[in-house]
Amino acid sequence: MAALLLHSVNRSAQITTKHCFISHKVSTLARLQDAHVASFHNSAAHRWSSLPGARWLSRGTGARFMCQGTAGRLPAGRSRRGAALVLAGAAAAAVVGFVANAGHFQRAEMASRVIQVAKQDDDILEKCKGFMSLPVTDVKVLQEKKGEMCARMELLIMETQAEFCRALEKVDGGKFKADRWQRKEGGGGISCVIQDSNVFEKAGVSVSVVFGHLTEEAAKQMKSRGKVLKGKDGKLPFCAMGISSVIHPKNPHVPTVHFNYRYFEIEEEDGSKQWWFGGGTDLTPTYLNEEDAFLFHNTLKEACDKHHPQYYPDFKKWCDRYFYVRHRGETRGIGGIFFDDLDSPSQEEAFSFIRSCTSTVVPCYVPLVYKHRDDAFTAEEKRWQQLRRGRYVEFNLVYDRGVKFGLATPGSRIESILMSLPLTAKWEYTHEPEEGSREAEMLEVLRTPREWL
Amino acid sequence: MAALLLHSVNRSAQITTKHCFISHKVSTLARLQDAHVASFHNSAAHRWSSLPGARWLSRGTGARFMCQGTAGRLPAGRSRRGAALVLAGAAAAAVVGFVANAGHFQRAEMASRVIQVAKQDDDILEKCKGFMSLPVTDVKVLQEKKGEMCARMELLIMETQAEFCRALEKVDGGKFKADRWQRKEGGGGISCVIQDSNVFEKAGVSVSVVFGHLTEEAAKQMKSRGKVLKGKDGKLPFCAMGISSVIHPKNPHVPTVHFNYRYFEIEEEDGSKQWWFGGGTDLTPTYLNEEDAFLFHNTLKEACDKHHPQYYPDFKKWCDRYFYVRHRGETRGIGGIFFDDLDSPSQEEAFSFIRSCTSTVVPCYVPLVYKHRDDAFTAEEKRWQQLRRGRYVEFNLVYDRGVKFGLATPGSRIESILMSLPLTAKWEYTHEPEEGSREAEMLEVLRTPREWL
Repeated sequence: MAALLLHSVNRSAQITTKHCFISHKVSTLARLQDAHVASFHNSAAHRWSSLPGARWLSRGTGARFMCQGTAGRLPAGRSRRGAALVLAGAAAAAVVGFVANAGHFQRAEMASRVIQVAKQDDDILEKCKGFMSLPVTDVKVLQEKKGEMCARMELLIMETQAEFCRALEKVDGGKFKADRWQRKEGGGGISCVIQDSNVFEKAGVSVSVVFGHLTEEAAKQMKSRGKVLKGKDGKLPFCAMGISSVIHPKNPHVPTVHFNYRYFEIEEEDGSKQWWFGGGTDLTPTYLNEEDAFLFHNTLKEACDKHHPQYYPDFKKWCDRYFYVRHRGETRGIGGIFFDDLDSPSQEEAFSFIRSCTSTVVPCYVPLVYKHRDDAFTAEEKRWQQLRRGRYVEFNLVYDRGVKFGLATPGSRIESILMSLPLTAKWEYTHEPEEGSREAEMLEVLRTPREWL
Repeated sequence: MAALLLHSVNRSAQITTKHCFISHKVSTLARLQDAHVASFHNSAAHRWSSLPGARWLSRGTGARFMCQGTAGRLPAGRSRRGAALVLAGAAAAAVVGFVANAGHFQRAEMASRVIQVAKQDDDILEKCKGFMSLPVTDVKVLQEKKGEMCARMELLIMETQAEFCRALEKVDGGKFKADRWQRKEGGGGISCVIQDSNVFEKAGVSVSVVFGHLTEEAAKQMKSRGKVLKGKDGKLPFCAMGISSVIHPKNPHVPTVHFNYRYFEIEEEDGSKQWWFGGGTDLTPTYLNEEDAFLFHNTLKEACDKHHPQYYPDFKKWCDRYFYVRHRGETRGIGGIFFDDLDSPSQEEAFSFIRSCTSTVVPCYVPLVYKHRDDAFTAEEKRWQQLRRGRYVEFNLVYDRGVKFGLATPGSRIESILMSLPLTAKWEYTHEPEEGSREAEMLEVLRTPREWL
């Protein structure tokens, strides 16, 4: 027992060193935090435990298996892999308690794990330095939960936000303004916006991570989508996160792009979780350019094909159906991909697909901005762009499920939801383009969606 | 019998003269029609009988009692009056048949009725000459049905459209363009629009008269409003008509006005009708002017007070509640009056109230246009107007029941529904007016509705 205790002490010392290392990282983090958000006093960890839904979200942050709710959906091998990842994720926090009861071999194994964990924590810290702001969730919590899908997805969307914003800053020459916001019901977000800049009239790239209990309205909406949800005492704790972006350029020859990738988890009565991913990327040009349409769709198809040969054709159709302005009989743009309720073949593979999608947002759009940002344009072309912007507003306010969900969710940050609206838009009564014009050609494509590949 | 026949012939001659008189009027009407709408070939009377819902709408166009469905709602005296009016209304069409079987006294009575009818027909024709276009319903049908609420309301909204358009043309110097449109499911409308004119950026005054069967969606919406509707074989024939107007001036010191007055009739299983009126007038200034607010609200109050002392206070509150942009926590403007489902104290009195309301649209708004159309304004003031226009769009597309109903009704004329959208609007991310500014003052009023009288 004494020897064991000694070992324990030795291990403790080692852990202390490690702890010092972590502390050093934490102080780096603190500086990072200071630099990013001087006013960000309220630690996410604190909020985490004092907010509705915290029980669910903080449950089992010690040594536990993340996949308990979703295990049923995963093949056994994957479950194990998930469990291993989570164990690593949980280790930093729980390591002292474990070690006190560990044998020699176990201790050696744990030592290597601690190093691995520290390495991963280090990676997370490194990643955070490149973000537009600190993640919504406290970095320590993300480190603790690094194997859980919520944490992994949050890091992915933060990374995507940074990557896309930096690429746009490069082509525009301006700088994004990053706003952190909190949702008093749980969670918050980071909205990055450039407005009236060199190339972009309005460009927004927003990340949000919200949690709490589904409102009755939202639960009804879910049920209408075929989800059978059994809450405890009628309550359905949820966690939703995503990245959403709309880029409205000034030049009418540079198309507008939109993408959104999201993850949703709902806890049911028996503690199991329903989860799914959704998302898509779509293009809205003011004027048709077939070469651009090909590049855009082809980049998306290549990302899809890595995962399933049916993804691109199915999600392309879904996109045309979803971005349909029914009262006008037009699609919003020339489409792309769109999907929702993706909960197969496994959480790991679905996430891997999402990762492929998020990694395409720069290559499928930014080259088009470089290509057209200096194109000459007429007042008439600008006018047509403004009219199409009006239709964009119509779709977003009348049909978009995300906007509707956001506007109906108490405590939503309206400015981030409506960030997707253009800076300026126009509605002319009974405007109809001249036959044979480039405007009429665009309209024709919107009325009869095409295959681009 | 021979004597009777002679009398009949004499009467026939008289009727013929009268008929000639009517014919003369009809040819005047034809010229009127030509002048108004050269392409308006499809007679409304023809459409009337060949369209879904026609059975219901044309039922009893001979000698019948209009109020059969609503008689239960009316005091006995009013029912009689309604019946008398309808008999007069029906007389012109049915008079030859009647006369053949009439005794001396009856014939004399009828002769005076025929004259009275001709006089009323004459009045209708005279009225039509002043309209922006011919009514949606064929004038002959309106003459035949002149005692029915549908016909009376259609004439009232046509009259209001003309009155308001003429007043706006006078203050603007421009001319309204009147568009006739037909709804293939039944009915149509007349949309009058001025765009990018001297005083007005966009001004629309639209009349519509539509009929058919309620869609399932619309029936559901009605039911959610507490209406118990029993259709025959699940079908609910309806007739809806109204005038709707939104005026967006160029100068940010001239407020935007909106009004809408409408009538709805639904036929139930047993042939009885449910009917109600709805409407309201409300003001949306860019900058607060208390004197204007007082004039506007006071004019409305005076119109309301003629009918019920509770109308203004109740409908003022209803207006503030209705024009509420929930996601912004702001009302759309400084209100006015709003009401719906008005089916008391009687159809006659409710109609009389609607008439008082429609007669206020010019005096409560046009003086404000004269007062401010030449006010100086800065670029900053124009920008604030554009941002407020963005909020106007948000209300109209996200909350407005009329727009939602219109967009969900197959065959609606989208351009007329969305005519209410401004020519230009703006959305700046996280715009917040400076403390103590006139913009902040306006926002304060929108966040905390005031009493103006």
